[in-house]
Amino acid sequence: MSSPPQPLIIGTGLIGTSIGLALRRVGVVPWLDDRDEEALAVAARRGAGHRLPPEGRVEVGLVIVAVPPGATAKVVAEALVRYPAAVVTDVASVKAPILAESAVAAPAAIGRYIGSHPMAGREVSGPQAARSDLFDDRPWVICAHPGNGEREARAVQALVKSCGAIPVPLAVADHDQAVALISHAPQLVSSLLAARLVGAPEDAVAIAGQGLRDMTRIAASDPALWREILLANADPIRGVLAALREDLDDVLAALEAGQERPLSHVLAAGNAGRARVPGKHGVRDGAATAVLPVMVSDRPGELSRLFAAIDAAGVNVEDARIEHVLGRPTGVVEVSVPAADAPRLGNGLRSAGWVVRG
Amino acid sequence: MSSPPQPLIIGTGLIGTSIGLALRRVGVVPWLDDRDEEALAVAARRGAGHRLPPEGRVEVGLVIVAVPPGATAKVVAEALVRYPAAVVTDVASVKAPILAESAVAAPAAIGRYIGSHPMAGREVSGPQAARSDLFDDRPWVICAHPGNGEREARAVQALVKSCGAIPVPLAVADHDQAVALISHAPQLVSSLLAARLVGAPEDAVAIAGQGLRDMTRIAASDPALWREILLANADPIRGVLAALREDLDDVLAALEAGQERPLSHVLAAGNAGRARVPGKHGVRDGAATAVLPVMVSDRPGELSRLFAAIDAAGVNVEDARIEHVLGRPTGVVEVSVPAADAPRLGNGLRSAGWVVRG
Repeated sequence: MSSPPQPLIIGTGLIGTSIGLALRRVGVVPWLDDRDEEALAVAARRGAGHRLPPEGRVEVGLVIVAVPPGATAKVVAEALVRYPAAVVTDVASVKAPILAESAVAAPAAIGRYIGSHPMAGREVSGPQAARSDLFDDRPWVICAHPGNGEREARAVQALVKSCGAIPVPLAVADHDQAVALISHAPQLVSSLLAARLVGAPEDAVAIAGQGLRDMTRIAASDPALWREILLANADPIRGVLAALREDLDDVLAALEAGQERPLSHVLAAGNAGRARVPGKHGVRDGAATAVLPVMVSDRPGELSRLFAAIDAAGVNVEDARIEHVLGRPTGVVEVSVPAADAPRLGNGLRSAGWVVRG
Repeated sequence: MSSPPQPLIIGTGLIGTSIGLALRRVGVVPWLDDRDEEALAVAARRGAGHRLPPEGRVEVGLVIVAVPPGATAKVVAEALVRYPAAVVTDVASVKAPILAESAVAAPAAIGRYIGSHPMAGREVSGPQAARSDLFDDRPWVICAHPGNGEREARAVQALVKSCGAIPVPLAVADHDQAVALISHAPQLVSSLLAARLVGAPEDAVAIAGQGLRDMTRIAASDPALWREILLANADPIRGVLAALREDLDDVLAALEAGQERPLSHVLAAGNAGRARVPGKHGVRDGAATAVLPVMVSDRPGELSRLFAAIDAAGVNVEDARIEHVLGRPTGVVEVSVPAADAPRLGNGLRSAGWVVRG
């Protein structure tokens, strides 16, 4: 794997600092810059790179702009001018407006700008929340435009791979349509649903379960950041939500008239759409992963004994969910493993005395 | 804890069979009945109870009707007639129509019917998927009506507690409004969003992440079952979705006009609504639970060593999420523990050589 040209990260929030931490794992030491002195100090202290010296020339081969989306185009254009030998990329979640605005602001240099978008994030923000493994195995979209050459594509691909991510080439417009569908519209739908809970009776929300928890998790996201993203990608998002609204009107009419068919149609379409969502490791849910529910007691050491038994079977655990441990006589650990290993692990655990359900 | 009167479970699907398995844990052996011979055989073989003898009288003190929602009222009314000394309850997720229809069909006996609703379920169905711990620590709503006496309330409370669940009294109409808000409308919203993915380009769904996975998980639910539930609770669901549609129209207009305010309003309301959703153990998310991200290598035995180190610190693990283990040199285990224990656990793990982020 080749290293990217000497990087400069402008903007040391969650994403910028995580890029620095990820690059440090493979021996690349970026320059860091941020007009927020405190964020910059935290990022440098956490080892994401070295502060850019206030004056004097330093070598910069690749500028990574990781500032809030509303400021991205301006900072990209400034970087193209200030670093006339460097490739410039950004990590904002909407690509068409940034390309258009940067092209207007720095038309002669736009061939050195190539947008990108790591498909990773957290509900929390800031350099404190940064993680070196944030991009591991995650898609990182690269949006080359006709003005780019081989050099820009190679530089960003080296960055993406050095961060542990998977490069995914997409045209600018295709990217913006895709994120409207898989990220921006879902964000608004989660917020719209969670907003219904604001005035709800306490005894109604008290009986909510995992379904509502899952449906409202991303509604906890930062409103200021999301307002910028939504306005920057307004047209593709409107397309998705307008289609959803048509289906919603069908549902409302069916509920009023007591009609089964439109409800069946939406529920079946939901089944079909859900089946297309990739699983945690980029595989279809249920296709390559199996879940074994294992009963556990609350005796001390029970979890370490369970994982020792799984080790003994030589099986990799992809995920584990623990239910009902707090003070209950029994609980369940739902262990996710590669489907091909599940029968062997089930037999191994049972013969070691564990109770495996299913 | 007092045992419920001798139970008969009619309907041995996921819920009925799970009730039988839960009761067996505390020494209660229910009678089982189902017109589906195969489901009945599976439930009996799994130990959920004994088949109801085809003829001859058996003692029945409490009938639990756990058939599909559309058939519930009819089976409740039949049970009231066939077992003139028994209390009759059901587990359907909509209560007002069942009370009304049963009262019409068996008016003299309606005082012995008391509806209930365990707030537990799975995306899978059938007696094979049943679990003895399905109701542990879950709310189980009891909807007494003015015709009930102390005896009915006591019988169902004993059932709920014997199954490990928490009795939650709610008026019939309040229950139906509550589930419209926290379960039925979210189900439709998940289906409506997932339906948008049906015709989407493959490279768009391929870059989806945890947000879309969470938002579409319940869209995998059984359409036939849900169509019945939605039509049975149509008016309260329409109320929730009509209000959501108004907010959606504001969002669409704001996206078209480039207005920040309506978007900020919906996103902030989403924050506020999400903050009201109870966490996994009935506490507010973030209030009582802290997450420690611990770096792990993919060496064999790493997970069992980690849980042994947590045991050594004497801390109860509430949940664990494992990220990036498959074939990567490093991964992260996000360990959820009571917030009060988090600093001690973090220090203990660090001094034992573990890298704890955050």
